[in-house]
Amino acid sequence: MRASCVLLCFLMFLAVSSAYPGKKKQYKPCKELVLYFHDIIYNGRNAANATSAIVAAPEGANLTILAGQFHFGNIVVFDDPITLDNNLHSPPVGRAQGMYIYDTKNTFTSWLGFSFSLNSTEHHGTISFIGADPIMVKTRDISVVGGTGDFFMHRGVATIATDAFEGEVYFRLKVDIKFYDCW
Amino acid sequence: MRASCVLLCFLMFLAVSSAYPGKKKQYKPCKELVLYFHDIIYNGRNAANATSAIVAAPEGANLTILAGQFHFGNIVVFDDPITLDNNLHSPPVGRAQGMYIYDTKNTFTSWLGFSFSLNSTEHHGTISFIGADPIMVKTRDISVVGGTGDFFMHRGVATIATDAFEGEVYFRLKVDIKFYDCW
Amino acid sequence: MRASCVLLCFLMFLAVSSAYPGKKKQYKPCKELVLYFHDIIYNGRNAANATSAIVAAPEGANLTILAGQFHFGNIVVFDDPITLDNNLHSPPVGRAQGMYIYDTKNTFTSWLGFSFSLNSTEHHGTISFIGADPIMVKTRDISVVGGTGDFFMHRGVATIATDAFEGEVYFRLKVDIKFYDCW
Repeated sequence: MRASCVLLCFLMFLAVSSAYPGKKKQYKPCKELVLYFHDIIYNGRNAANATSAIVAAPEGANLTILAGQFHFGNIVVFDDPITLDNNLHSPPVGRAQGMYIYDTKNTFTSWLGFSFSLNSTEHHGTISFIGADPIMVKTRDISVVGGTGDFFMHRGVATIATDAFEGEVYFRLKVDIKFYDCW
Repeated sequence: MRASCVLLCFLMFLAVSSAYPGKKKQYKPCKELVLYFHDIIYNGRNAANATSAIVAAPEGANLTILAGQFHFGNIVVFDDPITLDNNLHSPPVGRAQGMYIYDTKNTFTSWLGFSFSLNSTEHHGTISFIGADPIMVKTRDISVVGGTGDFFMHRGVATIATDAFEGEVYFRLKVDIKFYDCW
Repeated sequence: MRASCVLLCFLMFLAVSSAYPGKKKQYKPCKELVLYFHDIIYNGRNAANATSAIVAAPEGANLTILAGQFHFGNIVVFDDPITLDNNLHSPPVGRAQGMYIYDTKNTFTSWLGFSFSLNSTEHHGTISFIGADPIMVKTRDISVVGGTGDFFMHRGVATIATDAFEGEVYFRLKVDIKFYDCW
């Protein structure tokens, strides 16, 4: 009896301790993905290549030039190719779709609402992001609020870095997606 | 002493094992709701009936006709009735409120950000959705990112299907909401 | 042996019972924050003070006056100061950044998508919100869908109240953020 109690205790100890890593909320990602996306904004002359467009602007601004005061008030809609590396011409593994809003008058910040639609041999599914993006900061964290397909119910944090910025027409973001809740 | 240890072990065993089902993340929904919502887009002549309106458009487009290139760049704001069946004239159980953005230049896709405000004898609360919607695909999954009231803290996945599509003025979506995290 | 089993039992009991409060989904917040934010909408004459601007409007409306029909179809982009009390002139502890959309034709409701960027001695991080806001109701709940920094992976519900409303130019919201999932 005594021995079986000890055994039971031991098994429960294993159960409890093995339960912890999975159950206890971890600060180590359960999955990680590093992807790049490429935004070419429409400027009135690049219709063939543009992947995004200004669709709303504050009073007095237009839809082919980002607004004067740190672009405050511009809403940009995008459908940008996602690649595994930083080369715009690499085969895309999906599309980044949604919008960004320039939302500050005295510096460059934006608010992001978008989804990754991944469709490659490695990943099939969507990942949705929301968050404030203080563009001038080297790396900034936004929230991964949901997923479908391979990313069913996932949540996490994505660290964004501006990997390239060419004039007001092209930029490339590096997105390091760390999922902490993987299902 | 020995007996009480065994008893304690047993109680703890119950505690641990009963903890598992609630804790382990399930792939079977803990709650499911199938609802329809109805969108009548303003076209300049249907102000009385319209439930949505184009409020942003790309350069050269206007606010009464969806833009030419697969509606790329249109933002539509909506307040659509939700019904339990596919009949526009059924008593509404709530309102679908938010926006959709047409975000692709070479096919119809949109990005959705909206909430259901349910207010009926059966349900009272809100459900919020985010996601990419590849409209031409028969069923597509978006993320249920939060809820309030009866749907306090809920998360899940919603499967959307275009249940009717009449010209560029009326469409009806069937939304099969599966909650996997119910609280 | 018996004693060590009892000890082990006891330690495990502590482990299990201390594990529960953190694991079991609670209806008591694990963290709570009450903050205020202040919105001064641009009306064509207050460029120096304005913290928000109309950037999209329905057909026939303009970008300096909220649209006629309960502002239906207006999208407002904002970068509003957050304070600990209801005084606009208190030192800000961060910025509320994002957008609101007026989305109903026969009453005042909006749809909110925004983030708090907190940066004070007490809090550093972001909190992201999504939800339907039936403005005329005294208090309304929206979803807290994610967080970063001090609010890493947090989820919860925020109760919003209009704390002041002065003409169509200034309003102040009291936001009572209750986190139920704190990590």
